[in-house]
Amino acid sequence: MNKKDDFITQITKRSEDFSRWYVDVIRRAELADYSPMKGVMVIRPYGYEIWELMKEQLDRMFKATGHRNAYFPLFIPESFLKKEAEHVEGFAPEVAWVTMGGNEVLEERYAIRPTSEAIICSMYARWISSWRDLPVLINQWANVVRWEKVTRPFLRTTEFLWQEGHTVHATAAEAQEETLRILEVYRTFAEEYLALPVIAGLKTDAEKFAGAVSTYCIEALMPDGRALQAGTSHNLGQNFSRAFNIRFENRDQELEFGWGTSWGVSTRLVGAVIMAHGDDSGLIIPPRVAPFQAVIIPISRGDWKETVLPEATMLQQELQAAGIRVHLDDRDTNTPGWKFSEWEMRGVPLRVEIGPKDIEKKQVVLVNRLNREKSFVSRENCVAEIGRKLDEIQAMLFERALRFRQENTRDAADSDSLADIIEKQRGLVRAAWCGSADCEARVKEKTKATIRVILEETPPSGAACAACGKPGKHMVLFARSY
Amino acid sequence: MNKKDDFITQITKRSEDFSRWYVDVIRRAELADYSPMKGVMVIRPYGYEIWELMKEQLDRMFKATGHRNAYFPLFIPESFLKKEAEHVEGFAPEVAWVTMGGNEVLEERYAIRPTSEAIICSMYARWISSWRDLPVLINQWANVVRWEKVTRPFLRTTEFLWQEGHTVHATAAEAQEETLRILEVYRTFAEEYLALPVIAGLKTDAEKFAGAVSTYCIEALMPDGRALQAGTSHNLGQNFSRAFNIRFENRDQELEFGWGTSWGVSTRLVGAVIMAHGDDSGLIIPPRVAPFQAVIIPISRGDWKETVLPEATMLQQELQAAGIRVHLDDRDTNTPGWKFSEWEMRGVPLRVEIGPKDIEKKQVVLVNRLNREKSFVSRENCVAEIGRKLDEIQAMLFERALRFRQENTRDAADSDSLADIIEKQRGLVRAAWCGSADCEARVKEKTKATIRVILEETPPSGAACAACGKPGKHMVLFARSY
Repeated sequence: MNKKDDFITQITKRSEDFSRWYVDVIRRAELADYSPMKGVMVIRPYGYEIWELMKEQLDRMFKATGHRNAYFPLFIPESFLKKEAEHVEGFAPEVAWVTMGGNEVLEERYAIRPTSEAIICSMYARWISSWRDLPVLINQWANVVRWEKVTRPFLRTTEFLWQEGHTVHATAAEAQEETLRILEVYRTFAEEYLALPVIAGLKTDAEKFAGAVSTYCIEALMPDGRALQAGTSHNLGQNFSRAFNIRFENRDQELEFGWGTSWGVSTRLVGAVIMAHGDDSGLIIPPRVAPFQAVIIPISRGDWKETVLPEATMLQQELQAAGIRVHLDDRDTNTPGWKFSEWEMRGVPLRVEIGPKDIEKKQVVLVNRLNREKSFVSRENCVAEIGRKLDEIQAMLFERALRFRQENTRDAADSDSLADIIEKQRGLVRAAWCGSADCEARVKEKTKATIRVILEETPPSGAACAACGKPGKHMVLFARSY
Repeated sequence: MNKKDDFITQITKRSEDFSRWYVDVIRRAELADYSPMKGVMVIRPYGYEIWELMKEQLDRMFKATGHRNAYFPLFIPESFLKKEAEHVEGFAPEVAWVTMGGNEVLEERYAIRPTSEAIICSMYARWISSWRDLPVLINQWANVVRWEKVTRPFLRTTEFLWQEGHTVHATAAEAQEETLRILEVYRTFAEEYLALPVIAGLKTDAEKFAGAVSTYCIEALMPDGRALQAGTSHNLGQNFSRAFNIRFENRDQELEFGWGTSWGVSTRLVGAVIMAHGDDSGLIIPPRVAPFQAVIIPISRGDWKETVLPEATMLQQELQAAGIRVHLDDRDTNTPGWKFSEWEMRGVPLRVEIGPKDIEKKQVVLVNRLNREKSFVSRENCVAEIGRKLDEIQAMLFERALRFRQENTRDAADSDSLADIIEKQRGLVRAAWCGSADCEARVKEKTKATIRVILEETPPSGAACAACGKPGKHMVLFARSY
């Protein structure tokens, strides 16, 4: 992409072609760009700043629940990856291999981590020997590589950034507690920070993590009617402990294998935020993860540099002092109207206009990115009012997305209605399921929809499996997904 | 390493064998551990927390000087690495190569970044077209890989963590300004946060970065008399812009190549802190980067859990509220004496003891890790006093390291005295140098010492090159180095 084609009117309308809109807005807003390598993206500062804000908040939440960060190697010897049978089967096809170091061919090739259970568990086996060493509660922020055939910026790329927590506990119950504790951290984070309503629940065996006993996830619905898995928390049971020999002496002085969990979210969340909230004019970034929560645009008439600009600068400083992330666009190469569109496209939730008339009237003009509503507020109270507006926009975004999901969650009683809804309306389809992997596979083949989450509710009596018609054991959500 | 051999008395004395002490203390204090791969280390939570504190402060300093973070790919196509001739010559011998993705052999192999100029410059070429796009001021926090033959934890490992800044400017003068601005950021950070006195200056051509016009560095002296390069800032001139075709239309509407810089510091700084400040009992971590600045040890006599522990917990909360990083060691499995040694070994700068008698006397006991000085301070004022003590310890560490460097910087007038000092006393040797690469190489061959920094001062008249005896052009510092 050349700088010159970076003009805002060139974004495909979201209502016309969601998929093209998504890629257009990412490049025009300078969130990310393609690299010279297929499937590999570059995260530009504006996109990275969203990720940084996500990271900071998640990191606080992990630390508040007793976790500490560490850093494990990028490389995993092939023999380690092979120790857990299901795990290697799941990941080997998408691994990048290092076969040469300097000018020498390696005796054993190294996998670039697609996830780090294999290398981390091999270290835990050295560090853990007694119940006194437990629980081990470690997280790492890292890059991982998965050789993907079909890629999309942020949603599925060969290399991506994520956090991966890896814990070991003395009992099965504690591992399950941890798995659910983190699931709740993810749910809270998605809903309160990303304004992304999610359904938290269990995955089916077909959809679970390679090597886990059970996988929980948070699942969101995107505006094009497809589901997006936004985070996963795995109960690993003793699977990896057995494979890597993580044993500890318990309180009864018996040797026992440790009980593991692992969990992660990635830069995919940036993609979720872009898709969930944007509109035809471009991005809308939730205030709590917006690099700029407000942009001040001085109305450049007459001697504005002597009159309006000093006032705008003073307001900027007041907002910064109040902890609001604010940008003052004082360029004299562009008109206010151009700047309005530019910052709308970039998704800044609140615009603050100040012109000569506003100074006269001791006011500023606030414009809500979401509904374009204008309000005139007194200059004196405007810092508090801007803070209040940002909270309001955060809540509005969540409400809107929740309403969308409610309107796009439908019930299906049988195979035909399930297929019909998926085909014509997409969205989430609530249905009963008998629990058989065959039924799940048949639905997938017929509709391209998979079971996204097993719901906690028990099926109403007489509910029939939407695939085979036999008695339903679980209520589940079907959807096509990213 | 097994947990069981993790006993503190097993650290080799620093005064006996500096090298073994260094590795012992890293493993016993759980800063890092060896991975199953040669030359690859794992950074454990206690070590990673030191790096996190360094990162946070450096990141603030980079942002305060106008830089933004981004993220570029781990992979660099081989053809890109080859575009800058000196660059590839310098780095190719230590590159790890990815030759397979999934089950397919790649058409072109990918280097794992040893540094990112090649991939970043290829993106800058797309993003930059006008003087209005300049300066570009981007930093990234990332892992890099260099296939090293001889490794040491933190100081030289196959994979390490670092930051790398990459900037482009419209003029040569601005690039030089940036190079020196960052050098000053590094100097300030090393001295004020790591308590590490450094000499900032220019490298010789033989020691400069492969592809740079000039390399500046901060150089520290370690207690074993060897120098350590702790950070570098490179003026790249137009070298990479020419190789990657980064051109912009200047204000006179002429096409011109951009002027570049790059600069970095790494987890090596954790190694520098360990070496510079530790003693026979273990680590001493400067308060400003210490994961725990203070540790509270309740004296466990009689009904201490009912009497002492509540008081200790209250103090912990007060200290946390005052922004002090504090740990309360309330384990009942270990004696106070054992805990004293344990936390001394782990380098916590200040110990706070509270026992039944102290509660009676309304006091706490503070013990300075550096000089073991005890002070009894009133419970009422102790939070402020602990803050003051931490500042004092930070200053004492810097003063001590500075005094050591001064005492170990010696002048050499000729080749023999230079060799003699390096052989018998090590340390930094100040000498005149004629500027010839031959002379530099000859000294290196004879003494294993290299020119660490070209000093700014001009040689006194009549000063002769310490290698050839011809008139000296520069004053330089020679030393053996890490």
